[in-house]
Amino acid sequence: MKLATIDNGTRDGALVIVSCDGQSYLPAPEKISTLQMALDNWSVNEPVLQAVYPELKDGKGMSTASLSYLAPLPRAWQWLDGSAFKSHGDLMDQAFGFEPKQLSKPLMYQGMSHQFLSATADVPFMREEDGIDFEGEFAVIVDDVPMGVSAMQALKHIKLLILLNDWSLRTIAIPEMKTGFGWVQAKPACSVAPVALTPDELGVAWHDGRVHLDLVVDWNGKRFGGASGGEMGVGFHDLIAHAAATRDLCAGTIIGSGTVSNKNYREVGSSCIAERRGMETLDTGAAKTAYMSFGDQVRMEAISADIPHLFGIISQKVIKKTS
Amino acid sequence: MKLATIDNGTRDGALVIVSCDGQSYLPAPEKISTLQMALDNWSVNEPVLQAVYPELKDGKGMSTASLSYLAPLPRAWQWLDGSAFKSHGDLMDQAFGFEPKQLSKPLMYQGMSHQFLSATADVPFMREEDGIDFEGEFAVIVDDVPMGVSAMQALKHIKLLILLNDWSLRTIAIPEMKTGFGWVQAKPACSVAPVALTPDELGVAWHDGRVHLDLVVDWNGKRFGGASGGEMGVGFHDLIAHAAATRDLCAGTIIGSGTVSNKNYREVGSSCIAERRGMETLDTGAAKTAYMSFGDQVRMEAISADIPHLFGIISQKVIKKTS
Repeated sequence: MKLATIDNGTRDGALVIVSCDGQSYLPAPEKISTLQMALDNWSVNEPVLQAVYPELKDGKGMSTASLSYLAPLPRAWQWLDGSAFKSHGDLMDQAFGFEPKQLSKPLMYQGMSHQFLSATADVPFMREEDGIDFEGEFAVIVDDVPMGVSAMQALKHIKLLILLNDWSLRTIAIPEMKTGFGWVQAKPACSVAPVALTPDELGVAWHDGRVHLDLVVDWNGKRFGGASGGEMGVGFHDLIAHAAATRDLCAGTIIGSGTVSNKNYREVGSSCIAERRGMETLDTGAAKTAYMSFGDQVRMEAISADIPHLFGIISQKVIKKTS
Repeated sequence: MKLATIDNGTRDGALVIVSCDGQSYLPAPEKISTLQMALDNWSVNEPVLQAVYPELKDGKGMSTASLSYLAPLPRAWQWLDGSAFKSHGDLMDQAFGFEPKQLSKPLMYQGMSHQFLSATADVPFMREEDGIDFEGEFAVIVDDVPMGVSAMQALKHIKLLILLNDWSLRTIAIPEMKTGFGWVQAKPACSVAPVALTPDELGVAWHDGRVHLDLVVDWNGKRFGGASGGEMGVGFHDLIAHAAATRDLCAGTIIGSGTVSNKNYREVGSSCIAERRGMETLDTGAAKTAYMSFGDQVRMEAISADIPHLFGIISQKVIKKTS
């Protein structure tokens, strides 16, 4: 099943069910008029939504052509972002001069969740000097997860998959890391592709708690990366278990993979600029590629030879924030 | 005005207006049946709620005796916690062996916001060995704050004041700080006193963006601390400006002061165990006081010679999480 949220002038938008080809939609029943409402009681609501899906195949849907999509959850109660790709972590340590980390647990931070931007909205930032960078990621949305859940049990709590761009301000990131308090100013709102998928939509591309799809990233119209989500060092189920080690997770919690990255990054490219800078630092002793400028565009899409459309496309312009 | 949220079986509870003496209440009008709904359009909704307040003085309210309070916001879209008391920061550095921080900005982390426990609910933890500690704090709730707001402008966005216990797991905290990613497992859900106050309720005790009240903390029935909230190194308005430097803050964002702490901590005591351990480390080279055990109780209340009742009382027992 494919779900999306459309702009109806409210903070949470209106939940719709989208056809497999992305061309038509039907609104969700009134009692589950937002995705958060659906997630708050997913076991009851999912069958109701699934029952609408076949109607779209029968041509009963309306055209999506003039729809204005929001992020599937325009605001969420929780966003926890992992850093599950080892090649990314290694490169970042090299790029920023950190000691290599000896870790017994997955890396994860608590991100801001009160605002997720739509896939096509311009993204306002205060200053180019803050080091504006994109980060292409996959993420999962869970239902209620009890504290102390095992990784194996966590798998069944994964209800939806999304694709997102986790914007980062690199110049601010390093001083914030040094405080030990983690990121606040360095991690503004993420942008999210319009369609949230139930895992079954991916077929064999969803297994081992990983999204085995290539994430194609273009920066100003030029191919920048196409790494596979399948190379996560730990799966989403492990990330969920880590997140829930000392807390319950509420329905609608979003858990991110961290920047999608592969060992053969020199062939497939990267999902963020910082990685390329890491490579340049390794090769020449200094980073050459600058971070983004106002007016720059970034495009992200997860592709599959077998399944068209999937999450839809993130395509955005970075702009200067005006008061 | 005093607001509270009562348990009606839903995740967000039901908003009520409470009388000045805490003895009676009236439900909020249906269109603003939760505190988040009220905050989403505060400029319109506040006068509606304020209009109910005088009715309580006229004896039209119902008794609060049998009410079951939730946290004012049982779940919030954002929780950002500062560390604004210098004496606390200095002691923590000493207790945990960190280099003293040379900071040009306030310290702040992104906390989990999807669950705030009620003031009297038992608080379940997985393990005593995680180093269970309380942290008494004041916090503010804001309406929508635009990115780049100045500290001066930020003052007028402070709509409500609350009192909370920011639970911390100290054994996990240090390794998480060393990752640079900040806290996830070390910071489970906070507990919150039942009543949220508009700042005018504090009279002169609210000025300079600070709550000039003593926070009295008892651990297992014994006085542990009574530090004043007035000694914040930066005010709540500065914390808001810091938080909003690169992001909009949504209505209902909660901004915390960090553990209330005073320079004369040897006289007034502390609002968390880690501080006392810091003193012991300073004095004898090692911490003596253990963190909390299952069955331990903690009580917190902000007191004023002039104004009774205020936020109400946090009074809780720490228990072992059972599956």
